[in-house]
Amino acid sequence: MGELVFVGLGLDDEKGISLKGLEEAETADAVFIESYTSLMPNFSIENFKRLVGRAVQFVSRRQLEDEGGKAILEAAEKGKAVLLVPGDPLIATTHLALRLEAEKRGIKTRVVHGASIVSAVMGLCGLHNYKFGKSVTIPFPENFSETPYTVLAQNMRLGLHTLCFLDLDVEKNRYLTVRKALEMLLRVEEKKRNEVVTGETLAVGVARAGSVNPTVKADFVRELLSYDFGGPPYSLVFPGKLHFMEAEALIAFAKAPLSVRRLVE
Amino acid sequence: MGELVFVGLGLDDEKGISLKGLEEAETADAVFIESYTSLMPNFSIENFKRLVGRAVQFVSRRQLEDEGGKAILEAAEKGKAVLLVPGDPLIATTHLALRLEAEKRGIKTRVVHGASIVSAVMGLCGLHNYKFGKSVTIPFPENFSETPYTVLAQNMRLGLHTLCFLDLDVEKNRYLTVRKALEMLLRVEEKKRNEVVTGETLAVGVARAGSVNPTVKADFVRELLSYDFGGPPYSLVFPGKLHFMEAEALIAFAKAPLSVRRLVE
Repeated sequence: MGELVFVGLGLDDEKGISLKGLEEAETADAVFIESYTSLMPNFSIENFKRLVGRAVQFVSRRQLEDEGGKAILEAAEKGKAVLLVPGDPLIATTHLALRLEAEKRGIKTRVVHGASIVSAVMGLCGLHNYKFGKSVTIPFPENFSETPYTVLAQNMRLGLHTLCFLDLDVEKNRYLTVRKALEMLLRVEEKKRNEVVTGETLAVGVARAGSVNPTVKADFVRELLSYDFGGPPYSLVFPGKLHFMEAEALIAFAKAPLSVRRLVE
Repeated sequence: MGELVFVGLGLDDEKGISLKGLEEAETADAVFIESYTSLMPNFSIENFKRLVGRAVQFVSRRQLEDEGGKAILEAAEKGKAVLLVPGDPLIATTHLALRLEAEKRGIKTRVVHGASIVSAVMGLCGLHNYKFGKSVTIPFPENFSETPYTVLAQNMRLGLHTLCFLDLDVEKNRYLTVRKALEMLLRVEEKKRNEVVTGETLAVGVARAGSVNPTVKADFVRELLSYDFGGPPYSLVFPGKLHFMEAEALIAFAKAPLSVRRLVE
């Protein structure tokens, strides 16, 4: 009986993988890669193949979700299969479903972790990780939802920070921008009038976390709406209650206006 | 003017570092390492020095916190200094303070991310990351606090999962165990009687996340109290409302009793 090893690719490019992750790929009988659950903007499959020194089979969303990762499971029944995934594995539900199916078939599974957008964004903003509440994904406009607003309102009431993932469709090269995400929240605000997200609300936009040139910009929503974040992927953070050191960090690392000092509680 | 690069070592051993992190260390003018903010049980500084092919200076808690990382800042003023830290950098407040001080002195700073205990534990349990609320550290008994109980009560009321970091003192080789952490929560329960943590509460203990042999065990508190988790470090997760797939994941990956299926809402 074989095994299935989930290996995290970390962030941004082919060098985000850990040394042990690379070793797992080098010693596997079959290596698969999916690259649609997150965008790694500077990842080159050709460079990666050179690094690992072997063939790597690309799996699409269709193969992984509609066909249940059949090819991967078959390879894992015969020998050691490695599935390379952006970020840290098992953060996406898709990988969890595949791992469950593998275990059901008696295939042993293991995980080699990678850097995740979750801790990367928290660290880049300089906000304390233990003060983050529930996180939420802001969907594309055609999937309009009030949920992000509701989650944000709940966290704010509790004084907690909120990490928002902005929707993406890597296969279609489509990314929700910070501006569009803010506009959706403002649209709900207009209806609810709870003063959760207004032009005066502080937020932090993050683009290309984990790359050599991430953009991290804190400002009031009204200003962020027209800020140029450069290329994707994007995240958005709404700070809750600020510790004085967090305010200083936002000023130093996220170019926040000095007036955020007045928000310290 | 120089720069200071924070590089995450990832989890467990010297091969948790990313390829780009290793490159940063190889090309630095001075390399420092701190190993007290988290435990990497199988990390060998000798193996790491061989890997990176150069001298690495160890910095203690005293040097980093009491002396403000003076040696690191001085090296970063002259050239490129790298500070290697367990997990993902800037999750610990200490690193944030050092980064702030560096920026204040006009030293450029960058971050190369690593796998973090935060996303690793969420993934290993098979629980959905966006359903985690505020996280909390459970302190050693001599620093008894009701805060963990309060945070847990708040998350449970909202149906959210709670990630608890268990206190550690790597320099003194001392680690709060799952049992001791549960006992502290039960002590608060005895006083408050809010039925937040009782013998019947479901929890997941995780030991050595990121190693080749992590222990992940879900069970009711009364059973977990006597479960042998092996060596440190430890984390503890309290699931909130369970999706049916999360219940199946707890059974498959965390050996939860089949009765958790009855908790699905």
